[in-house]
Amino acid sequence: MKFLIFTYFGVVHLLSLCSGKSIYKNGISKRTFQEIKEEIASYGDIAKAIINLAVYGKAQNRSYERLALLVDTVGPRLSGSKNLEKAIQIMYQNLQRDGLENVHLEPVRIPHWERGEESAVMLEPRTHKIAMLGLGSSIRTPPEGITAEVLVVTSFDELQRRASEARGKIVVYNQPYVNYSKTVQYRTQGAVEAAKVGALASLIRSVASFSIYSPHTGIQEYQDGVPKIPTACITVEDAEMMSRMAARGIKIVIQLKMVEKTYPDADSFNTVAEITGSKYPEQVVLVSGHLDSWDVGQGAMDDGGGVFISWEALSLIKDLGLRPKRTLRLVLWTAEEQGGIGAFQYYQLHKVNVSNYSLVMESDAGTFLPTGLQFTGSEKARAIMEEVMSLLQPLNITQVLSHGEGTDINFWIQAGVPGASLLDDLYKYFFFHHSYGDTMTVMDPKQMNVAAAVWAVVSYVVADMEEMLPRS
Amino acid sequence: MKFLIFTYFGVVHLLSLCSGKSIYKNGISKRTFQEIKEEIASYGDIAKAIINLAVYGKAQNRSYERLALLVDTVGPRLSGSKNLEKAIQIMYQNLQRDGLENVHLEPVRIPHWERGEESAVMLEPRTHKIAMLGLGSSIRTPPEGITAEVLVVTSFDELQRRASEARGKIVVYNQPYVNYSKTVQYRTQGAVEAAKVGALASLIRSVASFSIYSPHTGIQEYQDGVPKIPTACITVEDAEMMSRMAARGIKIVIQLKMVEKTYPDADSFNTVAEITGSKYPEQVVLVSGHLDSWDVGQGAMDDGGGVFISWEALSLIKDLGLRPKRTLRLVLWTAEEQGGIGAFQYYQLHKVNVSNYSLVMESDAGTFLPTGLQFTGSEKARAIMEEVMSLLQPLNITQVLSHGEGTDINFWIQAGVPGASLLDDLYKYFFFHHSYGDTMTVMDPKQMNVAAAVWAVVSYVVADMEEMLPRS
Ligand SMILES: [Zn+2]
Ligand SMILES: [Zn+2]
Repeated sequence: MKFLIFTYFGVVHLLSLCSGKSIYKNGISKRTFQEIKEEIASYGDIAKAIINLAVYGKAQNRSYERLALLVDTVGPRLSGSKNLEKAIQIMYQNLQRDGLENVHLEPVRIPHWERGEESAVMLEPRTHKIAMLGLGSSIRTPPEGITAEVLVVTSFDELQRRASEARGKIVVYNQPYVNYSKTVQYRTQGAVEAAKVGALASLIRSVASFSIYSPHTGIQEYQDGVPKIPTACITVEDAEMMSRMAARGIKIVIQLKMVEKTYPDADSFNTVAEITGSKYPEQVVLVSGHLDSWDVGQGAMDDGGGVFISWEALSLIKDLGLRPKRTLRLVLWTAEEQGGIGAFQYYQLHKVNVSNYSLVMESDAGTFLPTGLQFTGSEKARAIMEEVMSLLQPLNITQVLSHGEGTDINFWIQAGVPGASLLDDLYKYFFFHHSYGDTMTVMDPKQMNVAAAVWAVVSYVVADMEEMLPRS
Repeated sequence: MKFLIFTYFGVVHLLSLCSGKSIYKNGISKRTFQEIKEEIASYGDIAKAIINLAVYGKAQNRSYERLALLVDTVGPRLSGSKNLEKAIQIMYQNLQRDGLENVHLEPVRIPHWERGEESAVMLEPRTHKIAMLGLGSSIRTPPEGITAEVLVVTSFDELQRRASEARGKIVVYNQPYVNYSKTVQYRTQGAVEAAKVGALASLIRSVASFSIYSPHTGIQEYQDGVPKIPTACITVEDAEMMSRMAARGIKIVIQLKMVEKTYPDADSFNTVAEITGSKYPEQVVLVSGHLDSWDVGQGAMDDGGGVFISWEALSLIKDLGLRPKRTLRLVLWTAEEQGGIGAFQYYQLHKVNVSNYSLVMESDAGTFLPTGLQFTGSEKARAIMEEVMSLLQPLNITQVLSHGEGTDINFWIQAGVPGASLLDDLYKYFFFHHSYGDTMTVMDPKQMNVAAAVWAVVSYVVADMEEMLPRS
């Protein structure tokens, strides 16, 4: 298969190689946009070959099958856990066996917080076991737990207005779900705000757009000078029930027990593999997802899908016998969920080379049916990306939207490197995010095929064009 | 409000009273269908008054608020539990305080099975805590649990073909969800079929059309002459994962521990209230839902909604100062989930009166936005029901479909009594059914208003028409 396709499409590839010459000097292109358009259009047959292989050919369902094997074998992959390190070792072997180049691990020190035995029981007005998950970095409770009356609020504003009622209580936030970036403030800041007004603990309504009694965990952040209090997420259902009870004037008492523990930082790695560039090997198009996950479910959606379509992009390009002019670098980040720890370390190590990064790509918002590419970069770069995405006309996925971003690529974007993230059908994403429901059952092999094809076409063409993407 | 509406609509009502006379003898009507049509059409203003009160007036959201108060206060209501008996006592008081007539409790002996500590842990190929719920009536495991290799099958057919592999194993059923009535066979019969081929226990993929890692419990049935083995439901996610592992040839070992217990039958009650008929008080239109639930979640959807729109139907009629010619009887069944135990007892007690039941109604398939009425009865009765439903034109809910049924009314339907059940938007019903997700969060006050209006119009008009519904 590899040889046949190489022979067939090699013609196109070689033609494209011959027609270009390096006229990119000091970051200023002398080429007209029409010339660039024509260059991109010449990748039409390669784009079709990638799509055919990924969506209809021998590679279909491969990223799904590879992902299923990893997450079924390892399970969830929390920062600092043995599972994460096992997954890194397996991926290292996977990438080597796949024949990728320069496969290596880059050391990172990462946080090591562990969930222990934990429970929340409503004692008044009736006995009710409350489903909960401690939030990442939360401290433990005293061994006997914290037993206290509940103050239910629906916003930080309400907490401020009722600050005098909060002392000695457990604050329950029943904030409505607006969107992730707005609502997640309650998860990250809820404990700090509750502690500022004297609360003993805080329970946050899960940041979820839909619930079947599922708690959704995630990181939370203490603040210097503010007492640390234990904090956990509860379900939408229980937050709403306690809100109704409180509105009826019913006294609610909860006993919260958590035996979470923070250990010294652990050794981990960003996992790297490449297809080395044929002409400008020092120049890089970076394709990525994060290998760590939360400690519930399988981390299949967040961000197994992103990891495996990123690997698949390189596999597809390699299987077609293609080698772009610039280096295609796959990075599987570690400890994204703890605040992009692996990505920060990578940036520190490689930022000296920032001028050689043409494009940084991350998929960390699902690999459902893609709707387009989110992009951050100069207007000229955006115009080029629109031409590149027009190569995906056969899949009817050609949109270039704004706000290309990702925890792991934002360091580069802030340094001026163009950045792209996959935008897909997010309808169900926050049904499962950071919950026990983030499993292979959520994933769709056909949708992953399409996502991988988009990822491969974009990364290959940008890596192979004669010039790097222009910056502002 | 009550007085004003009575004055306003009393005219219509009295007119309808005067225009009819009893020409129904020996079950044979001498009236033409045109006369019946005109009689039903005369209820147009009453139907509008009911709709206005329920959907736009002072009664709006009442059934939702009443339901929330009960299920928040009591929680789930398993057959034989203290919660169920508490709920019955509260409802008895509620119905009395509402001013309904002949409020009373009819004794029933009901099963008393209790969930104990229970767990399923995957030991091989990796340690994984499997979410599970023992199925109703399941026996316990030995104290040390049952530790055995897993045989995954996707159907009873596959189990038969692989019968020789089942001995000494834990059978895991990963049957696809087709529809409830087909797929639920695995829950009810899975243990028996597994035991027949020598399995030690069976784990059933939850009967759910969608999952966020939620197990869905329910009743299961042992069979005389077949060894009883412990049986539980697991999530769609874990059933699918084990199916994938088995397909890869991986050996799976599970340790199952269950401390469920069956006690002697307990005392319970069907809860009854009436609006006594003005002209034919011995004749009955029965309106019903079941008060018991499973022991997880709040039993808000199954069948709190059915109970509370049924009560609401009588409340609306009473609040409008209406009193139909025949008796409107509200019955809140006990122990439906154990196989219609309360309904069977009620039938035994009242079947002598079967010829006086004009219509039996049950809502036990959700109180989401109604799409129409499911009806079982003679063609003549169906034609009449179509006219009655045309009164709901203002809500655009006029369909009369086939298959009126319900565990609690089927005894009557089989004895020839016309039966009606509420059909509503079932899209999400089996997301939540018998799971921790069956809570008030699922319920929509506006949808309950509409369901209650449909329920009230149908029950009132059929109870007030000059003639009983004709039988075959
Ligand atoms: Zn992520
Ligand atoms: Zn039911």
